[in-house]
Amino acid sequence: MTVMNANEDVDREVVGTSDAGTEPVETQSHDSRTFTAEELSAGQQAHDLDRAHVFHSWQAQGPFTPMTVLAAEGPYVWDGEGRKLLDMSSQLVNTNIGHQHPKVVAAIQEQAAKLCTIAPQHVNDARSEAARLITEVTPGDLDHVFFTNGGADANEHAIRMARLHTGRTKVLSAYRSYHGGTQLAVNVTGDPRRFANDYSAEGIVHFMPAYQYRSYFGATTEAEETQRALQHLEDMITLEGPSNIAALILETVPGTAGIYGPPAGYLEGVRELTSRHGIVFIADEVMAGFGRTGAWFAVDHWGVTPDLLTFAKGVNSGYVPLGGVAISDDIFETFRDRVYPGGLTYSGHPLACAAAVATITAMREEGMIGNAERLGRDIIGPALHEMAQRHPSIGDIRGMGCFWAVELVKDRTTSEPMAAYGGSSPEMNRVIAAMKSGGVLPFANFNRIHVVPPLNTPDDDVCFGLEVLDQALSIADGYVN
Amino acid sequence: MTVMNANEDVDREVVGTSDAGTEPVETQSHDSRTFTAEELSAGQQAHDLDRAHVFHSWQAQGPFTPMTVLAAEGPYVWDGEGRKLLDMSSQLVNTNIGHQHPKVVAAIQEQAAKLCTIAPQHVNDARSEAARLITEVTPGDLDHVFFTNGGADANEHAIRMARLHTGRTKVLSAYRSYHGGTQLAVNVTGDPRRFANDYSAEGIVHFMPAYQYRSYFGATTEAEETQRALQHLEDMITLEGPSNIAALILETVPGTAGIYGPPAGYLEGVRELTSRHGIVFIADEVMAGFGRTGAWFAVDHWGVTPDLLTFAKGVNSGYVPLGGVAISDDIFETFRDRVYPGGLTYSGHPLACAAAVATITAMREEGMIGNAERLGRDIIGPALHEMAQRHPSIGDIRGMGCFWAVELVKDRTTSEPMAAYGGSSPEMNRVIAAMKSGGVLPFANFNRIHVVPPLNTPDDDVCFGLEVLDQALSIADGYVN
Ligand SMILES: Cc1ncc(COP(=O)(O)O)c(C=O)c1O
Ligand SMILES: Cc1ncc(COP(=O)(O)O)c(C=O)c1O
Repeated sequence: MTVMNANEDVDREVVGTSDAGTEPVETQSHDSRTFTAEELSAGQQAHDLDRAHVFHSWQAQGPFTPMTVLAAEGPYVWDGEGRKLLDMSSQLVNTNIGHQHPKVVAAIQEQAAKLCTIAPQHVNDARSEAARLITEVTPGDLDHVFFTNGGADANEHAIRMARLHTGRTKVLSAYRSYHGGTQLAVNVTGDPRRFANDYSAEGIVHFMPAYQYRSYFGATTEAEETQRALQHLEDMITLEGPSNIAALILETVPGTAGIYGPPAGYLEGVRELTSRHGIVFIADEVMAGFGRTGAWFAVDHWGVTPDLLTFAKGVNSGYVPLGGVAISDDIFETFRDRVYPGGLTYSGHPLACAAAVATITAMREEGMIGNAERLGRDIIGPALHEMAQRHPSIGDIRGMGCFWAVELVKDRTTSEPMAAYGGSSPEMNRVIAAMKSGGVLPFANFNRIHVVPPLNTPDDDVCFGLEVLDQALSIADGYVN
Repeated sequence: MTVMNANEDVDREVVGTSDAGTEPVETQSHDSRTFTAEELSAGQQAHDLDRAHVFHSWQAQGPFTPMTVLAAEGPYVWDGEGRKLLDMSSQLVNTNIGHQHPKVVAAIQEQAAKLCTIAPQHVNDARSEAARLITEVTPGDLDHVFFTNGGADANEHAIRMARLHTGRTKVLSAYRSYHGGTQLAVNVTGDPRRFANDYSAEGIVHFMPAYQYRSYFGATTEAEETQRALQHLEDMITLEGPSNIAALILETVPGTAGIYGPPAGYLEGVRELTSRHGIVFIADEVMAGFGRTGAWFAVDHWGVTPDLLTFAKGVNSGYVPLGGVAISDDIFETFRDRVYPGGLTYSGHPLACAAAVATITAMREEGMIGNAERLGRDIIGPALHEMAQRHPSIGDIRGMGCFWAVELVKDRTTSEPMAAYGGSSPEMNRVIAAMKSGGVLPFANFNRIHVVPPLNTPDDDVCFGLEVLDQALSIADGYVN
C-alpha cells in the first residue's frame, strides 16, 4: 500500500491561463466586441462567486487566479476585461469546430425543445443517429458504440471490456500518457498527474513510449526509434507474461505529453504484437480523434484498426459532455449473450448525441477534416519550421493537421528543456504571458507550447497566432545558454 | 488477483422496460398524443439503428429488446407505438422535475445561444451561479462545489479528496449500495453489479447496512436495528483500524437497494462515529438528493451534515449530464495550498450548470420540494399502506416524499422475496408487464417495485399510477403461498 501524497509539483494541464502575466497588455489588430459596464461587472461577480464556491481541477484552490471568459465565438474568447484572445488551445483541445458553431447550437436548441434526456435502456433517435454516424467514420469493424460522459469513463469502460473479453487482468500503458482523472484512468495515465494517485493500480504496467526527440532508447534515427521501441514493448510483454495481459492502451498521437506521432512502422508494430498475443489494443483518440490530426481518427494515417477506440472532446466539440468507446465486432460478440457489467445514468444522452450528429455533419459539410490537414501542411508546419531556423530556443517542432507542438530548450545540443518534466518555469511563464498579451490563448505544458487551434480557424487568424508565437519565442531565445 | 467473470445473473437496474410484456395492451383513460405514420416509422428506424450500433449499459446485447421512446413530457413518455405511459420511474430516478420543463428547456436554449462550453480553469457565470445556488441548499458548511459529469465520478473524486485529506487509504461502504459504474465507484458499490468487477478493490471494505425489514442483525424493533447496526459499524471500524480509514461512503437513503431510510438515530450515530475517528463521512445523495425525499437533501431529515456530499441526477433532472461533490470548509482547506490531483475536461460545464440553475429556481418557484413531501405524506404513503392491508404479496412498504419501495414477497411470515436478491423472476416480470400494459412505466429491482414519480406529478396522475400498481399487485397476490 503506497502512502498517498498530493504532489505539489504536479503542473496544471494549461498553465497559460493563470497568473503568469507580467507583460504589458497590447491591443491586437483584430476587431473587438464591446461589453457594457454591466456585463463587465457581471463578469467580476462571476469571478468572485467562483472563488467563493467553485472547486477547480488540478489546482491548489488558494493561489489560483482564473481568467474570466465573458464570451466566445469561433476561435475567439473574450476575457474579463473584454479583451479578445485567439484561442490557440481549443480550450482543452476540444473545441475542434470552434465556439458557438451556429449549426450545432441550433441542433442543441432543437433537441432541447424535443427531448432533453432519456434513460440509457430506451431507444432514442438522436442516440441511434449519433451511433450510426460515429461508426460510419470509425475505421474497420468498430461498429458498436458505448456512450459515456467524457474521456476518462470511456477509457475505464474500454479497459473493463478488454479484461472481460480476454479473462486477463494486466493493462499496459505508456509513460507520459494521459487517459483521464478517475481512479483507473489515472492509474493507466503515465504523466505526473498520476503521481499523487498512484494506488489501487493493480495490474497496471507502464512502458516507454516511442518519442524520438528524447528517445528513451538512445535512438538517433526514426527507423531506430521504431525498432527499439517495438523491441522494448515486445520485451515487456514477454517479461510480464503475454497470457496475463488484457489490454494495451495507447494515445495514437500522445497529446498533452507532447504531440509526438508514432514513428513510421510503430503503430503497425503495436497492432501486430497485440494481435499476436491476443491483447486488446485500445487506441485513446480522446484528443487526437475527430479531425484534430487532419483525418477522422489519427489511426487512419497509419491504416491501423484497434480493437477498441475511445473518444470524447471533438465528437461534439464538448458542447455537451459526451465520450464513448467504439467496439469491434469481435468484442461485441463477447457481450452478445453475456451481461456487460457497466453503465451510467447518462449513457447516450440525447442532447449530447444531437450535438454529435450536428458536429459530424457540419465537419463533413464544411470540409473541416481536409481543412485541418491543409492548415497543418500549408500554414502551421511551414511557419513553425521556418521559425525553428530563426529561434535557437526551439528544440523540436512536430505535428500534423491542427495538432502541433513546439518544444523549447535552453540548449539545442543537450536538449535541456525550458521547464523540467512535470513543472513550469519563470522562462515558460514569460513566454506564455507574452502570447496572452499579444492576444493569443496558448496551450502550454512543461517546456512546450502546443499549437492546437480549432480546425476551422480562418487562415488569417492562424497566421496571426503564429506571429504572436514568433514574437514570444524571442523572449525564449533570451534564455538560451 | 481475482479471476474476473461477468456474472450472468447481474440484473438490470430497471427490468420493467424490457421484453417482460405478456399481458394484453389495454388503453388507459388518459388522453393521448397522436403520432404520424412517419413519426412511428422514424421510431422503428431508430430502433433498428440502436440494435445495430448502440451498446447498452448492464445488458447482454443480444437478447435485449429496448423500448423506443418517441416523446416525453412532464411525467409521461410515449413508446414506439405511440402509447402513453406514466413514468413512475423518473427514468433512472433522475427526472425530478419531469420531462421537458419549459423553464429549464428555455434556460438550456439560452445558454446554448450564449456559450455552450468553456474549459474548467476559466471563470464562467453559469458555473459560478450554479455553485452559489447549490451551496445555498446544501446543509452546514458544504460551501464549495467540484463539478463532475455524473454520480460515479462524483463519488470517485469524493473518495480521492477523503484519502488525500486524511492520508489514509481504506474506505468503508455498505453492502447492497450503488455508487456508480467506473472502477472505484463500482468497487465501493455493494450490490450485485459489483460482482463481475470485483478486482482492484484495494482498501475497500463493506459493512452491513441498517435495513430493518430484513435485518442483518436479527433486530425486531427500530431501536434494536439502530443500536445493532451502529455497534456493527463500530466493531468494523475497530477491527479494520480506525487510523487506517479515510472515508465512509453511504447513501443517506439507499436507493436502488430498496429505499430504506436510516432507522431513528442511525445517521446521527454514523456522524458521531466518523467524527470521533477522523473518518470523512461521504453522503451519496445522487438519487436521494434535490427534493426526492421531500427535502433538499435526505440528510436534512436527520439534521446531519456530512463532510462531503455527492450529487447528480436531480441537480438538473439529467437534462444535461452533471454531478458534483459539495465540500466542507475543512476539506477545502486541505486543498487551499496543495494541488487537488484530479479533474475532467467538462468540470462545471456551462450548459449543464445553466440547467442546474434553472432547475433549482423552478423547484423553488413551484414549491416542488414541499409538493414531494405532501405527495408522500398525503397520497403515496396512505395509498400504499392501504394496499398493504389488502395485498398479501406486500411484505413491506417504506419511503418518504416521492421515494417509495414496495417489497413483494411470497410469504409474509418468512418474507421470502418474489425474486431472489440479484435476480428477476417470472412472477415479477408479470407484475411489471401488468403495470406497463396498464399504462405505467415502473422502476423495478429484484423483488421490489419503486414508486418514484417526478416531484411535480399531478395528484390525479399519481393516483392513476397507484391504481395501476394496485391492479398489478393482484397478480402478485396469486403467487403468495
Ligand atoms: C488522450 C486523453 N484521454 C483521456 C482524456 C480524459 O478525458 P476527460 O477529461 O473528458 O475525462 C483526455 C483529456 O484531456 C485526453 O487528452
Ligand atoms: C446512489 C447513487 N450513486 C451513484 C450513482 C451513479 O450515478 P451515475 O449513473 O450518474 O454515474 C447512482 C446511479 O443510479 C446512484 O443511484
